[in-house]
Amino acid sequence: MRIMGIDPGLAIVGFGIIDLDVRKVKVVDYGTIQTDNSLCYTDRLLCVGNSLEKILKIYQPDVVAIEELFFNKNSKTAFAISQVRGVIIYTVLKKEIPLYEYTPLQVKQGVVGYGRATKNQVQLMVKNLLNLKEIPKPDDAADGLAVALCHKNFLRSNGINLQGVVK
Amino acid sequence: MRIMGIDPGLAIVGFGIIDLDVRKVKVVDYGTIQTDNSLCYTDRLLCVGNSLEKILKIYQPDVVAIEELFFNKNSKTAFAISQVRGVIIYTVLKKEIPLYEYTPLQVKQGVVGYGRATKNQVQLMVKNLLNLKEIPKPDDAADGLAVALCHKNFLRSNGINLQGVVK
Repeated sequence: MRIMGIDPGLAIVGFGIIDLDVRKVKVVDYGTIQTDNSLCYTDRLLCVGNSLEKILKIYQPDVVAIEELFFNKNSKTAFAISQVRGVIIYTVLKKEIPLYEYTPLQVKQGVVGYGRATKNQVQLMVKNLLNLKEIPKPDDAADGLAVALCHKNFLRSNGINLQGVVK
Repeated sequence: MRIMGIDPGLAIVGFGIIDLDVRKVKVVDYGTIQTDNSLCYTDRLLCVGNSLEKILKIYQPDVVAIEELFFNKNSKTAFAISQVRGVIIYTVLKKEIPLYEYTPLQVKQGVVGYGRATKNQVQLMVKNLLNLKEIPKPDDAADGLAVALCHKNFLRSNGINLQGVVK
């Protein structure tokens, strides 16, 4: 099973793609969608959707997991990110790919086992769980991988067999 | 020139389409995109995008105007509507249709000439300006027409010639 995790943002959308094998988890790719800040925000939304479409086409994930918004954030930023989330959700569902959402708390619990884990603790666990030599950079990409790992954990904790066929 | 105005909402998206002729403004159509509240909100986003795509294909507006969010609204609702807005903006720009945004204040000023006009005053002006027998129903559709009329006013106040060719 191939899982894509997404950490939505206005300037940078982080993503991470992992494959679940019988014995292990394998990183397929990770990275970011960065939109030019000289563009108006509506054109940035278009860029995010178009880029995501391309990534979905290249990697064909079986499922996408996306981080929910933390509602205490600054409102104006949160509204902007909500619009990005709308574009992402629509683009994923239009491709008929199942979508799951996780709160930041769930992501921390799923990856570190502790809801109040620091950003750095999450990133270190991402590195360790995926047998990477270094913490993936930038942070947004590491966060994307964390969301993907959170979904893996969700499957396991719900007794779902992870022995999918790696593409 | 054909203008489509959109009033975004989670449960109901109102829209109104008008044609600008040399002498007059003509209503082409108005209505709503309503999403089933038994659906999860992500599927509702998908419905809005798919329905809007169909409407754009049928009526092929030259330009789309959309109402901006009033930021004092309840946050959770505002976040949800922001996501809908993201879907709408993405769907319009993907079709390479120019998009304009107007605040609720601008819509009231553009239609009634007074930023503190009541909802009912706006609707009455929509009815009068478009020579309709009755106020368009539901309110969301009338609001969509108001946004379209606001864009018409924006063009006029910017000295843009309205003598487009009616499709």
